[in-house]
Amino acid sequence: MKALVYQGPGTKSWMEVPNPVIKQPTDVVVKMMATTICGTDLHILAGDLPEVEAGRILGHEGVGVITEVGSAVTQLKVGDRVILSCVSSCGRCANCRTGLYSHCLDPEGTPGIGWIFGYMIDGTQAEYVRVPFAENSVYVMPKGMSDREGMLLSDILPTGFEIGVQYGRVQPGDVVAVIGAGPVGLSAVVTSRLYGPSRVISIDLDEGRLKRAMSFGATDTVNSGDADWMQQVLALTDGAGVDVAIEAVGQAQTFTMATQIVRPGGSVANIGVHGNPVELALNELWIKNIDVSMGLVNTNTLGMLLKLVAEHQLLVDGFVTHEFAFDQMIEAYDTFAHASLHDALKVLIS
Amino acid sequence: MKALVYQGPGTKSWMEVPNPVIKQPTDVVVKMMATTICGTDLHILAGDLPEVEAGRILGHEGVGVITEVGSAVTQLKVGDRVILSCVSSCGRCANCRTGLYSHCLDPEGTPGIGWIFGYMIDGTQAEYVRVPFAENSVYVMPKGMSDREGMLLSDILPTGFEIGVQYGRVQPGDVVAVIGAGPVGLSAVVTSRLYGPSRVISIDLDEGRLKRAMSFGATDTVNSGDADWMQQVLALTDGAGVDVAIEAVGQAQTFTMATQIVRPGGSVANIGVHGNPVELALNELWIKNIDVSMGLVNTNTLGMLLKLVAEHQLLVDGFVTHEFAFDQMIEAYDTFAHASLHDALKVLIS
Amino acid sequence: MKALVYQGPGTKSWMEVPNPVIKQPTDVVVKMMATTICGTDLHILAGDLPEVEAGRILGHEGVGVITEVGSAVTQLKVGDRVILSCVSSCGRCANCRTGLYSHCLDPEGTPGIGWIFGYMIDGTQAEYVRVPFAENSVYVMPKGMSDREGMLLSDILPTGFEIGVQYGRVQPGDVVAVIGAGPVGLSAVVTSRLYGPSRVISIDLDEGRLKRAMSFGATDTVNSGDADWMQQVLALTDGAGVDVAIEAVGQAQTFTMATQIVRPGGSVANIGVHGNPVELALNELWIKNIDVSMGLVNTNTLGMLLKLVAEHQLLVDGFVTHEFAFDQMIEAYDTFAHASLHDALKVLIS
Amino acid sequence: MKALVYQGPGTKSWMEVPNPVIKQPTDVVVKMMATTICGTDLHILAGDLPEVEAGRILGHEGVGVITEVGSAVTQLKVGDRVILSCVSSCGRCANCRTGLYSHCLDPEGTPGIGWIFGYMIDGTQAEYVRVPFAENSVYVMPKGMSDREGMLLSDILPTGFEIGVQYGRVQPGDVVAVIGAGPVGLSAVVTSRLYGPSRVISIDLDEGRLKRAMSFGATDTVNSGDADWMQQVLALTDGAGVDVAIEAVGQAQTFTMATQIVRPGGSVANIGVHGNPVELALNELWIKNIDVSMGLVNTNTLGMLLKLVAEHQLLVDGFVTHEFAFDQMIEAYDTFAHASLHDALKVLIS
Repeated sequence: MKALVYQGPGTKSWMEVPNPVIKQPTDVVVKMMATTICGTDLHILAGDLPEVEAGRILGHEGVGVITEVGSAVTQLKVGDRVILSCVSSCGRCANCRTGLYSHCLDPEGTPGIGWIFGYMIDGTQAEYVRVPFAENSVYVMPKGMSDREGMLLSDILPTGFEIGVQYGRVQPGDVVAVIGAGPVGLSAVVTSRLYGPSRVISIDLDEGRLKRAMSFGATDTVNSGDADWMQQVLALTDGAGVDVAIEAVGQAQTFTMATQIVRPGGSVANIGVHGNPVELALNELWIKNIDVSMGLVNTNTLGMLLKLVAEHQLLVDGFVTHEFAFDQMIEAYDTFAHASLHDALKVLIS
Repeated sequence: MKALVYQGPGTKSWMEVPNPVIKQPTDVVVKMMATTICGTDLHILAGDLPEVEAGRILGHEGVGVITEVGSAVTQLKVGDRVILSCVSSCGRCANCRTGLYSHCLDPEGTPGIGWIFGYMIDGTQAEYVRVPFAENSVYVMPKGMSDREGMLLSDILPTGFEIGVQYGRVQPGDVVAVIGAGPVGLSAVVTSRLYGPSRVISIDLDEGRLKRAMSFGATDTVNSGDADWMQQVLALTDGAGVDVAIEAVGQAQTFTMATQIVRPGGSVANIGVHGNPVELALNELWIKNIDVSMGLVNTNTLGMLLKLVAEHQLLVDGFVTHEFAFDQMIEAYDTFAHASLHDALKVLIS
Repeated sequence: MKALVYQGPGTKSWMEVPNPVIKQPTDVVVKMMATTICGTDLHILAGDLPEVEAGRILGHEGVGVITEVGSAVTQLKVGDRVILSCVSSCGRCANCRTGLYSHCLDPEGTPGIGWIFGYMIDGTQAEYVRVPFAENSVYVMPKGMSDREGMLLSDILPTGFEIGVQYGRVQPGDVVAVIGAGPVGLSAVVTSRLYGPSRVISIDLDEGRLKRAMSFGATDTVNSGDADWMQQVLALTDGAGVDVAIEAVGQAQTFTMATQIVRPGGSVANIGVHGNPVELALNELWIKNIDVSMGLVNTNTLGMLLKLVAEHQLLVDGFVTHEFAFDQMIEAYDTFAHASLHDALKVLIS
Repeated sequence: MKALVYQGPGTKSWMEVPNPVIKQPTDVVVKMMATTICGTDLHILAGDLPEVEAGRILGHEGVGVITEVGSAVTQLKVGDRVILSCVSSCGRCANCRTGLYSHCLDPEGTPGIGWIFGYMIDGTQAEYVRVPFAENSVYVMPKGMSDREGMLLSDILPTGFEIGVQYGRVQPGDVVAVIGAGPVGLSAVVTSRLYGPSRVISIDLDEGRLKRAMSFGATDTVNSGDADWMQQVLALTDGAGVDVAIEAVGQAQTFTMATQIVRPGGSVANIGVHGNPVELALNELWIKNIDVSMGLVNTNTLGMLLKLVAEHQLLVDGFVTHEFAFDQMIEAYDTFAHASLHDALKVLIS
């Protein structure tokens, strides 16, 4: 089969590799119908995650059709159209039993991290993929759901919802601010509406992205390049700050912005992947009764979000901005790597 | 001033009575701009609540303008446009401190029940009303909110939300069924959308009401007069039942219906006012891991719902079906008492 | 091997049967070190559950040592000392993923019920037992934990905690009443202390049981045979009723008692197995803002309770009142069937 | 009357001042029976809070007897023995209605902070004190409760419980670590037991304090001066870290320690008052699914904790280490200011 193979820092190939086979009784093999590219894939290619070995097939998102099942698999069968979770979950360790799939204690790679696809084991940017712990890690797609919709459920929708909206404890009536209007930030915007906010403020430096945020359910936008951006945000609240500030960028500055606009008693939810420590102004914040959360997605809400997408209760139409065939994989990478140039959100490779 | 006075079972008058005055330092007096009629008012008139004394001014809903404030009132002032909660809350007893305003321990009437307007003290179907514990029991209306919108916040929207949706623990992705499509049932339909359900099924015997339910946010309707109504409901779920069944009628039969359509692990929320005991099939239900809730509204979410109405985040346009002037009070009662004849939901008296 | 076999209503034998073998890749076989008898076993013997077939080995509680593992089992090994959950959980269906193991959708017996041991498949009153879905259904015992302690974790401790204490939403400072001082009622007493109640009132007709309840952590006792039992209970509260009333008997009368002593805003948690419908006084209760829960144990807290037993943080010493060897199984049944005659709680068969 | 008056940085006097009088209808005047000194008082004296004016009577803890009530006070009366909350709550602003008394929007001092006693208005280290918003800010003591017990409820017990235990989300079975074994840290130790932890680890540099922590309910102690302190802590868990790490010191180093010992999925609760920003290692922590909380006490659990103290369900005997008379106030300050020299926790001034 063909797959996108990491060849060491800076190098990748769309090349012929052996087909995957069942290794464990709980595995399935899936023929991929659609996959996509994530910012993390770019980090791996840049050499930022040296634990990834050359020869690794990248990718941790996608949908496909089961072509083979292991001997212990009873709830899935050949021919099932499934969504692959970006996190692999054994379903039986202490962490998985409480829904903390992100820290599965029995993975096939880095101990204690459930994200292994395209990282510790071969991933989804390929014609076929072996899926470990399949019955806990894939979800059957209902009839009528498109690959384009299903693919969003592998990672970005659950990430925005779980790490942004749920960890941020959004409640009906809340004013929510989401810093960063990329795919994950917009996922937080879309899914924040599941808890009935009174306002959802999208904050970004890019006017194009801000405009687009309105079609994903934002009620207001603020350009953080404006000198008075903070005053603009506070003016959209009762003056005391937002109830929930969601960080979806991953930089020290945007994290600090989130802590500055949150009201006493409110929450800061960090989704961003950070490369450096940040300064936390505990001298000012200790008295504010706030909560700061962070984490890797569990995808323990994937099945629930799938129902909402199937019932057309989520605004997910605008995420895919570009489409490619599998053998245009390199071209898809080029487009995604220069997302702002191409005004790209997610690329669909099918 | 003029007011609607209960004169004993079966008799009421729109008549001249003395204006109310401040009695306690925490009182305010409000000039009513709009009020409405509730099914409970009809019960009082029928003599079903014999504890209500002849001479009582009825009504527990409405909006108005403050004309006088007591000496301990500091957060409200003359001229404020306010919504009156149907429940009076002292704000300082053990129950009020936990938000259980419905069971305020320091009311001016029946000990331990926060609903006193138009019941134990004079109510809101009048040109002026004295409001006890004003700072804990009225809410300032934002500019731009209409009397028609504000009036819905006195009772029916909080009742549907708190006793139906919150007690029923609606969560994103849930399938919710609401039995009864009258004003309170429709309030539950409207406000259930604040928790992102995948489906909201309205169940009633009246096709006209069912049709209307769709405009309040129901995704599906089932006529409970159909022999196979239960199969119709189950067909809208995965076959195991609804996640939350809300009863908004107040009869033994509709309560039983709710317990029959709920899934294992689900919730039954009773909003209806019942006149008789019901049979609970614990022999079948003990193993189903369900939860049955019930209660009188606290209006502790009134302030939050007010923000959502102000931001046009709730579908509240269709509740008022008929309008009257204050001196048409008797005519308004006639219309509301024959609601199905007039296809009436709420009547606005302003 | 020897096992206790149900031979049809009224008849049982301790007899030679074939040893169990691995049937599924996710099975293990366990050599039982200790088991016990539950009231449900007596019901099956009486013929009350006609779905149980003659030839079935009874029992759903116990501890043992793994002697064989299926090909998909990776987290358990031969020689592990384990506690068997009374509920079998596939760990991958929609219900198991949310901790609702009691309603596992993929059991080997009655669809949708996780309790199958000694009911739909052969049980634990035997020298060996096949355990399906082993990695989701057994828990490794820490060194130093006795069989006597471990056995309590199969059913009664999780049942009292999950269905009584957690479903009843016990919170710090609460006054908790537990009606019934048998093994499950006492489990609710013991585990209610995990949420810091201010009082735990044990209610029963038997003075001997009430006296014993004090050593399990009750702070007060009330004999429900007293004419003024309800006044005695209310006198232990602020007069408004208990915060949480736990029913651990399974009769209409005791269920009604629970609804009579609960305060406005409080909870009734039904643990009892009921054979008949009950009357629920919704005409009085609708206004009380209470919550009525019920259910079959999930044992999703078994691992957590195990840690507390291992750290000696639960008062579990007094549960086992009588001990027998495996070949005294019939004698053990005789003692347990006449529990009050022998002042018996749980019998240990080892 | 006599009172302890702040005279500017470094200077204080126990001197004659005018008796306080009722200013608002919701005030009461209390004759103090007992008070105590808090670390914050020392900070004010050191000049660290320049917003405190010279002439201010210090102190925000204590118990006393009501000698006068305002015209709007109906639930309290002259002669009531009461505990004063360190936080004043109007009971009617948006924050107070949700229990966020720490950020009362209608205080008599710094807008938006409920702590005003001994800070923005005269405090409790005096023979008499005026108490604003009395019915929301004092709690009647039950008969049999001593001044010594009651005084602990003004601040330290609610602080340890709300900001440490509740914000830290302690659950049954958890391993809890409390860094710092001073009065507030020990309050967290004592009250953490209300949620049934499996272990409570007290961490401090002082062996004497650690020894004392065991009598407050710690199950284990670790001296943070040991080079391998972190290994010692991890050895008391399953190796992955503690479920909840509570910081009760207020230094960057101890905050960092808390983030280092918490398990994936766990919580860090900061109680300490910090004078400087801290570094948060988001580069390592973003993937750990942890939660960091902080805040000023609300005392919204004071009434609940009072019930537990009254029922002797909390280990509070050891907090008062030294006793003084009111006219020994200066001596009491000397002892408390050199707490470690005198092995002092709380001083009782009565």
